[in-house]
Amino acid sequence: MIIAADNLRVTQPTIAKAIEQLDPAPIAAMARRCAEAGADWIDINPGPLNRDPVGRMTFLVETVCAVTTLPLMLDTVNPAAMAAGLAAGRSNRVILNGFSLEPAKLAQILPLAGQYGCDIVGYLLTPDSQVPVSEEECIAVALDLYSAFQATGLSDAQLIIDPVVAPLIWADGPRHNRHLLTLLRTLPDLLGFPVRTIAGLSNLTAGRMPGKIKQAMQRTFLPMLAAAGLNIGLLDIDHPDTVLTARTCTQLLENDIIA
Amino acid sequence: MIIAADNLRVTQPTIAKAIEQLDPAPIAAMARRCAEAGADWIDINPGPLNRDPVGRMTFLVETVCAVTTLPLMLDTVNPAAMAAGLAAGRSNRVILNGFSLEPAKLAQILPLAGQYGCDIVGYLLTPDSQVPVSEEECIAVALDLYSAFQATGLSDAQLIIDPVVAPLIWADGPRHNRHLLTLLRTLPDLLGFPVRTIAGLSNLTAGRMPGKIKQAMQRTFLPMLAAAGLNIGLLDIDHPDTVLTARTCTQLLENDIIA
Repeated sequence: MIIAADNLRVTQPTIAKAIEQLDPAPIAAMARRCAEAGADWIDINPGPLNRDPVGRMTFLVETVCAVTTLPLMLDTVNPAAMAAGLAAGRSNRVILNGFSLEPAKLAQILPLAGQYGCDIVGYLLTPDSQVPVSEEECIAVALDLYSAFQATGLSDAQLIIDPVVAPLIWADGPRHNRHLLTLLRTLPDLLGFPVRTIAGLSNLTAGRMPGKIKQAMQRTFLPMLAAAGLNIGLLDIDHPDTVLTARTCTQLLENDIIA
Repeated sequence: MIIAADNLRVTQPTIAKAIEQLDPAPIAAMARRCAEAGADWIDINPGPLNRDPVGRMTFLVETVCAVTTLPLMLDTVNPAAMAAGLAAGRSNRVILNGFSLEPAKLAQILPLAGQYGCDIVGYLLTPDSQVPVSEEECIAVALDLYSAFQATGLSDAQLIIDPVVAPLIWADGPRHNRHLLTLLRTLPDLLGFPVRTIAGLSNLTAGRMPGKIKQAMQRTFLPMLAAAGLNIGLLDIDHPDTVLTARTCTQLLENDIIA
């Protein structure tokens, strides 16, 4: 399992302040910490960047690229910021995170992946950004998403599907997440190739919940996802239990010899 | 998920000594600790009991029944000990652990379940007590085991299948355990009813391995088993991480509302 760190995000106050002030030190420190803690990829999530999207995403990507060669996920809904990040991130591999069936994303984000020839995450969300409810709706969304992706001319191996983990505090969250396990197992057959998948663990425990319970929920759900075929775990690199669990999933599911 | 504690076992020196000396205090203390730590069932594993099987199993079962009403698993290959435990354990529910296709067990252990009308664990092992290698062999063993069980006249709901977790240090251990996940998902369709299943987590990490790694392996594999349909986890009640993981599996897989 690939570990993608979700720590470089605007919801962390030190990161928000550093983006606001274009102060590279906290950004560089966080990127270094992710790399040292064993992240394989780093997700850069500056939010929608309503103010100065080009300057801020360029600053972020250049700062991170200066301290690590790890692949970067550009995690924003702002197409101008996405384009700026792609232009700035030439030294590192860049993954777009991401598109959905939302018309603005199909029109402005997805084509960037085709233009730059890079991998892109596609979210299993309806065109109005809702989590599909029934299994049939999930399947329809997955097929439509793949069909839109194919129009870019990219190879199948460049698509990464995010089936969207639901917060447990949602009324339908636990049930949705159980369906998600089935869906992960079904996707390769449904699309006809071994499609890569990603899931954001922090979503699972969004909202108020004791820290110990959050970690237990995450490190219990992650192996379920992994055994269902998940390839990439987007998680908090400062949760050592979750990181150890991700590594242990790899040992149990991908290694034949465990020394 | 039902949590069965595997702590009352002869491989623990204090338990071995207490059995040898027919000293009830350490046995009663351990049974109490299992109950207080949240065990749903207690596995009583005195080994083969070559000396005084009747006296010792009677002593064990009476001692445990005096301090808890929890169901007990009688975990021995000795039919005389099993019969004595059944006779002594009338106040608590008793589960036999267990039989396999080994001729001696089919002849002497399985009939006891029919005679006492109690649940029994069937191990997916070949008639010469080997772990089946191929998927086909696993399926053949499961069908033969079910067929032998049916001859007792017990209802399907009284069978519990143990697909036998392999130690990771075995050359084929990791691969076997991955097949086991598929097998757990297949068993209900294969046998035609929602057969209950049990797995012993300690087997996974048998041998020399740092304690922290053992716990990480167990608490990572358990959710994979649970998502594949496992009903009963046989585990060390003194591993709080594994116990919390078992409880969290139940929340994620069986509850619709998580408060």
